[in-house]
Amino acid sequence: MKRDLVIGVDLGGTNVNSAVVDEGGRITHRAWQSISGSRTAGEVIDRLVACVETTMESCGRDRVAGVGVGTPGLIPEGSGTVVYAPNVPEWVDLPLQSLLRERLGLPVAIENDANAAAIGEHWVGGAAGYANIICITLGTGVGGAIIMNHEVWRGSNGAGGEIGHMTVVENGRMCGCGAPGCLEAYASATAIAEQARELLRDGRTSVLSELAGGDPGRIDAAMIAEAADRGDETAREVMHRSATLLGTAVSSLTNLLNPELIVIGGGVIKAGDLIFGPVRAEVARRAYKWSAGILEIVPARLGDDAGIIGAARHFMLTRTT
Amino acid sequence: MKRDLVIGVDLGGTNVNSAVVDEGGRITHRAWQSISGSRTAGEVIDRLVACVETTMESCGRDRVAGVGVGTPGLIPEGSGTVVYAPNVPEWVDLPLQSLLRERLGLPVAIENDANAAAIGEHWVGGAAGYANIICITLGTGVGGAIIMNHEVWRGSNGAGGEIGHMTVVENGRMCGCGAPGCLEAYASATAIAEQARELLRDGRTSVLSELAGGDPGRIDAAMIAEAADRGDETAREVMHRSATLLGTAVSSLTNLLNPELIVIGGGVIKAGDLIFGPVRAEVARRAYKWSAGILEIVPARLGDDAGIIGAARHFMLTRTT
Repeated sequence: MKRDLVIGVDLGGTNVNSAVVDEGGRITHRAWQSISGSRTAGEVIDRLVACVETTMESCGRDRVAGVGVGTPGLIPEGSGTVVYAPNVPEWVDLPLQSLLRERLGLPVAIENDANAAAIGEHWVGGAAGYANIICITLGTGVGGAIIMNHEVWRGSNGAGGEIGHMTVVENGRMCGCGAPGCLEAYASATAIAEQARELLRDGRTSVLSELAGGDPGRIDAAMIAEAADRGDETAREVMHRSATLLGTAVSSLTNLLNPELIVIGGGVIKAGDLIFGPVRAEVARRAYKWSAGILEIVPARLGDDAGIIGAARHFMLTRTT
Repeated sequence: MKRDLVIGVDLGGTNVNSAVVDEGGRITHRAWQSISGSRTAGEVIDRLVACVETTMESCGRDRVAGVGVGTPGLIPEGSGTVVYAPNVPEWVDLPLQSLLRERLGLPVAIENDANAAAIGEHWVGGAAGYANIICITLGTGVGGAIIMNHEVWRGSNGAGGEIGHMTVVENGRMCGCGAPGCLEAYASATAIAEQARELLRDGRTSVLSELAGGDPGRIDAAMIAEAADRGDETAREVMHRSATLLGTAVSSLTNLLNPELIVIGGGVIKAGDLIFGPVRAEVARRAYKWSAGILEIVPARLGDDAGIIGAARHFMLTRTT
């Protein structure tokens, strides 16, 4: 039987999602596992393997050529090793690719999660057909990936594309990375929620208190988008500020790299023009007309599937080169 | 006779400089012409041609294979045309390459001046041997160029590399490009002088007043570097602020592109650690360790010759591909 299918895996902060991906980038046979509470690399890998095994059973193991995994962390090109992962301090020099290959008995290719999402959008999503692309994903952090001449730019030792850690406010909010004023400290879903909570703590009234059932800890970016959509001033202010600073970074990227397309993804983009409006306004204000004139700024099209599809595609590309 | 020499030309804001460049990147037979007061493209081209003719006479016209010209302005790849030049509003869609070829009767290749300087430094200067480089030149503006995998990144329509127009202060000083808070509004030689003049206007005392003979209009970046070197507090404050914001941009570039080397050029770098100290401090504070760990930050080595040598090299490269 022809091995015409690949398993794509998206290893997130709380769940591992996997699915069968065919040669056209179509997804079938999904599975997922919670990894909440899994602290060690071994525990996470156990659940990842279980998730992949479930997926393979559903499509028939004989048809699976291999597995592509999108994971947080820095992976020097060709190493198959997660050197470190900012949000998973236990992962240091973890040879994830070979560990998974042994456990699964199949070829495996691993890729940084932000790069995987960009590869997915570039293959069959909002960036298909474009050569020079920047992908920004607003999630727990701000994921970034740069594709130039149809290839991911990984940098000199694999650490490139950290768009979330461009400085946007000189001495601004402290970022998880330890530096002040990073884009991530304003425009991640986490940071958007934090900024709303801070305004409530300062005594601002908002429908958010009600939506969160009186517990500010429950406020998340989706809730803020909903409140903003309903005209809530506090929520609108937070969204506007975050989107404006995202626009500042997008403008710098436009002047610097002159891409054809910037794709913005993550659950927050459901807020639509509340995000894209200020981003476009900043580009109009800050970017060179010649660069801005050809630039398209679009929402990601594959949603949460971008990482799975891109991880599978990454596997296919490493197999054919 | 073998045509083994190339004329490199650096077209600046006030002068045109040209020289003979051999296959090893060595310079001989220099000439220059003032272009102060030349308003039209025709006048500038006349003086450029005169300058090149003088250079060719000195080395023997028969030995010249062609002419490489570094010029301000945006040149879409392969077009030979300056689409626009921010500081020379008269230059719009100027087919400089073919105009010069006709006038000189020799093959000509034109290149953006910041790219030419980077190509020069990459060929025989401070960046020789490195694959992934960013060059920043602090002059009238802040010139920027990105070299990845040994090639200049020009962007999707030739407008890439505008490092001077990354935002470093959210609502900062107004830049010549019309946007607030660009790096160029703080770290160009022009901006450094302006910021010193502003402090003097605000009543600050400084040895600069004396150095400038009582005419603040005469203050330039070299004078500020000298005053800072002599311990002048006002001059030191300006240099520190400019260098710190340069460091902010360098940090963002490090996180984004993960280069091996950042080369900083322009007359201002004579200030040495007054510039490089704050830049390195910001990188230590803001850049990811994995990226910062391999990064070298060095002064440009070719000085004002980088543009001439790089323009000549650009000609050689276009002839062999």
